[in-house]
Amino acid sequence: METNRISQVVIKRLPRYMRFLSELKAQGVDRISSGELSELMQVTASQIRQDLNHFGGFGQQGYGYNVSRLINEIGRILGLDREHHLIVIGAGNLGRALAGYSNFEGRGLYIRALFDIDPERAGITVRGLPVYQMRELSAYLKNNKVDIAVLTIPKEQARQMARELYDKGVRGFWNFAHLDLELPGDAVVENVHLSESLMQLTYYMTH
Amino acid sequence: METNRISQVVIKRLPRYMRFLSELKAQGVDRISSGELSELMQVTASQIRQDLNHFGGFGQQGYGYNVSRLINEIGRILGLDREHHLIVIGAGNLGRALAGYSNFEGRGLYIRALFDIDPERAGITVRGLPVYQMRELSAYLKNNKVDIAVLTIPKEQARQMARELYDKGVRGFWNFAHLDLELPGDAVVENVHLSESLMQLTYYMTH
Repeated sequence: METNRISQVVIKRLPRYMRFLSELKAQGVDRISSGELSELMQVTASQIRQDLNHFGGFGQQGYGYNVSRLINEIGRILGLDREHHLIVIGAGNLGRALAGYSNFEGRGLYIRALFDIDPERAGITVRGLPVYQMRELSAYLKNNKVDIAVLTIPKEQARQMARELYDKGVRGFWNFAHLDLELPGDAVVENVHLSESLMQLTYYMTH
Repeated sequence: METNRISQVVIKRLPRYMRFLSELKAQGVDRISSGELSELMQVTASQIRQDLNHFGGFGQQGYGYNVSRLINEIGRILGLDREHHLIVIGAGNLGRALAGYSNFEGRGLYIRALFDIDPERAGITVRGLPVYQMRELSAYLKNNKVDIAVLTIPKEQARQMARELYDKGVRGFWNFAHLDLELPGDAVVENVHLSESLMQLTYYMTH
């Protein structure tokens, strides 16, 4: 199946399909028409058909979409059919908030440990996950597979930390530090710049 | 000055200009050419010229851009030339992390208080900010101007809470709960769906 050509805007919409479809599944709904999904998601039925046609179009005339099959297929496209091992760098409020999301695990996203520079934080656990001291990171990376590092440290430390993680084999970066990481081309970085999101809000509130 | 026609993609880029320009200003840089800014931000000089032309184009041939003037102008467009008063609903790890960002204040964004349903949390302070009990919210809204509510509560409670806040006059919602809020058209909602951002990362890691 051709998935390489799916445009970025469609990819951005897929997690939202996942959310609605997963809620339907939890309610025991087996199948849904594009019209019903359209009403639920407040997008046009034709956009839904177009989006879902990108990856095979599992709708059948007079039947609609099979909810479970669509969840699996979107999950496969999003890379959620495999396990991803995550560590959180920084065990402050934000790091602990992210480590606390147990529902990531249903998507194959396993947070394994947190690391913090503050020795006072090392030794505590967050949702049963260990908080290690930063100086234990090197040894941890040698002995454990880490796909994604979640960076919740100040921007002053984030650039060097990202480089160190990259040099030790980490390729995925979920970056909450307020800077652009400079990493080689095979690194994948997803930035969450919270203050930029807040400025979008103030923009739309004043226009 | 015509700012209504600026496209959404340009608006999304403005906070990033703010970040780089503010760093330049902090370093004592008064003016910068589009070429220098281009190198720093890793975007083409022509995109920078195009973007900044949308709001008057403060560049001058042979001079470049006046950093402070550009910061002020972008800030004005983003609505940061006025004060915004925020409250945080939910004083868990995420709510406390957001309330902890003191640098919002330099942008006119003032977090005033947190509210939590857990009476154990009420009475504590976060960066000097009070945490009130949820039942104190009504009275607080009567006596204080609140422009933006930051929702860090579970999605099961978020819909009703947003409606209540709306009914009591709040129009801006920075929503971290994993659902689409259904609010009248004059409400402005900016969603931060963290798990959706993580799924973008896993997508690009597997393609």
